[in-house]
Amino acid sequence: MNGPHPSDPPERPADPPAPSAGWQPSCPLPASRYPRVLLGHGGGGRLMQELLDETVLPRLGLLRTDGLHDGALLAPGGPQLAFTTDAFVVDPLFFPGGDIGSLSVHGTVNDLAMCGARPLALSAALVLEEGLPMDVLERVLDSMHAAARACGTQVVTGDTKVVERRTGEGLWITTTGVGRVAAGASLAPWRLRPGDVLLVSGDIGRHGVAVMSRREGLAFETEVLSDSAAVTEPALALLAAGLDVRCMRDPSRGGLAAVLDELARSSGRDLAVREADVPVSREVSAACELLGLDPLMVPCEGRFLAVVPADDADAALRILERFDGCARAARIGVVGDTTGRTVQLENALGVRRGLILPSGEQLPRIC
Amino acid sequence: MNGPHPSDPPERPADPPAPSAGWQPSCPLPASRYPRVLLGHGGGGRLMQELLDETVLPRLGLLRTDGLHDGALLAPGGPQLAFTTDAFVVDPLFFPGGDIGSLSVHGTVNDLAMCGARPLALSAALVLEEGLPMDVLERVLDSMHAAARACGTQVVTGDTKVVERRTGEGLWITTTGVGRVAAGASLAPWRLRPGDVLLVSGDIGRHGVAVMSRREGLAFETEVLSDSAAVTEPALALLAAGLDVRCMRDPSRGGLAAVLDELARSSGRDLAVREADVPVSREVSAACELLGLDPLMVPCEGRFLAVVPADDADAALRILERFDGCARAARIGVVGDTTGRTVQLENALGVRRGLILPSGEQLPRIC
Repeated sequence: MNGPHPSDPPERPADPPAPSAGWQPSCPLPASRYPRVLLGHGGGGRLMQELLDETVLPRLGLLRTDGLHDGALLAPGGPQLAFTTDAFVVDPLFFPGGDIGSLSVHGTVNDLAMCGARPLALSAALVLEEGLPMDVLERVLDSMHAAARACGTQVVTGDTKVVERRTGEGLWITTTGVGRVAAGASLAPWRLRPGDVLLVSGDIGRHGVAVMSRREGLAFETEVLSDSAAVTEPALALLAAGLDVRCMRDPSRGGLAAVLDELARSSGRDLAVREADVPVSREVSAACELLGLDPLMVPCEGRFLAVVPADDADAALRILERFDGCARAARIGVVGDTTGRTVQLENALGVRRGLILPSGEQLPRIC
Repeated sequence: MNGPHPSDPPERPADPPAPSAGWQPSCPLPASRYPRVLLGHGGGGRLMQELLDETVLPRLGLLRTDGLHDGALLAPGGPQLAFTTDAFVVDPLFFPGGDIGSLSVHGTVNDLAMCGARPLALSAALVLEEGLPMDVLERVLDSMHAAARACGTQVVTGDTKVVERRTGEGLWITTTGVGRVAAGASLAPWRLRPGDVLLVSGDIGRHGVAVMSRREGLAFETEVLSDSAAVTEPALALLAAGLDVRCMRDPSRGGLAAVLDELARSSGRDLAVREADVPVSREVSAACELLGLDPLMVPCEGRFLAVVPADDADAALRILERFDGCARAARIGVVGDTTGRTVQLENALGVRRGLILPSGEQLPRIC
């Protein structure tokens, strides 16, 4: 809780840990080491982890247990439900391949999918800046509605607030989803075993590059479109096929690097990833080079990482390849038998290095 | 849908209307009559109704049915669940009697209570402005956690984003709640009958006056504290006692006037309210006079309106009086047998006038 990478992690628990309802600190919580919030606290890197682990989670009575990632599970007496919330502050509001409306639906639906759940209902809370052009709001709402329908769900409740004018362009959306968890799904980092295979469902980095290129006014020979899309169907197809999926994560803020790091930390294991096996399109590679970005750290909004037993990996890839967005699904690494909680990257020359997350953010306001 | 107060409202439906999942407009939706968002679009008055009815709801595929107010009901195969979301943008963050953290919990828990539900879990999405003092964030989170525990619930999932510095003081919270609906609760405006009694659970206007006095730097002889509190216990006690509660609403943005107007519109009935019977404390009255506010339009965050059959009204008041915050619970009016969808206010001299909501907002950024 109080620091990254303790040297002697506990082994995987005998039982799946329950959400720590009612946990109370035994002594007053220390003040943060930062006097003020920094932009980097929102960036998906080490600073954000510190803010969450040292300030937000303990003060809300939450431990970063295996049960806690981007969604929580509720069992209200009927089928198990997943519950997740996301604030979207992407700038600009419209980018190649999507906009804040569709993105807010996909981001939330994907967090549910990573819990093994199909969306049952969404809520949307809008914070509008005075002076926002009304047709911008209308386009965003239309896009949100269309995206929700395409995911077989709907926004069923919401709230709308207006704050004073700043740029006259501000629009933030918080989308919350409740989903029904597929029967038999048991997805958690503690289920990772040595030899398990890490799969990624498609090529990475498109969303971040699409937003950055629009924001920076860059035009590439081939326009890179955001991958913003729901991953519900491919993700749940793996479960429906009876594969023993250990855990799934969608690489949003902080990119694939952030979810690999989080999985290593929360599973207590070392992960080994071959960089050359991570699918990256030629356009995204070129754009990353130009923008000075590491594709591993560039957000996706329509891709996911799945960890499966080695015996299930080929079957999983054959299933994934049937779905849009998954043409370049690939195995990218394995779960190690050591418990260092690190991610080891092997480059094309066979040289290994430990993954180090950036302190702040490569990409602000990207989702 | 396309305008306030249609002159010939449909009568109460035979069956409770279902949420209109999948509803689609049969033709392209017209553009808003406003080119840009106005501050008043967030204020709880007529402008906000127009924004919701003409832009937000139809574009999200929602009709303003009886099933739609501040919460939605989900029936995922087990017990019925309520689902509600609220964005909190109150300025200042700390005010007499509360802060944005406790307010965000109470507001959401109260929307669940108005659905007849006890909170099962909350989510919190934080949008922080770069430069926000970290101790402000810490105090708000501590307050949020304490309020949630006092309500018997917890924040179980969340999200944290950071946006660029403006004043260095910005902190917005969107809180979403899932709650379990009490067995047998059937709460909806279509259940209002002529002769039903309107009860308010306590004196009104404290929250708005507390926030405004802090914002304006006013000091009154007696400091007015916000009424911010959960109303779950008194509201559910009415249901547990077997009273045939028709509908409940909490008068937040827009105050008691806004919920009365909404009930008149959605029930299709006229409501008659005696202004002298609406409990207002001496301090709130004095402050409203000074600030030029109508207490009926000043938000509360720990009060509710309940509509009960005349035969149940005395029993309801006796139950309410046992709870904190309900010492001044009172009957304030009746449901009429006419279907004009208006609220008729009778003043101390017996003179009647129709309630007219302000166009914009009396009180910006109050919750």
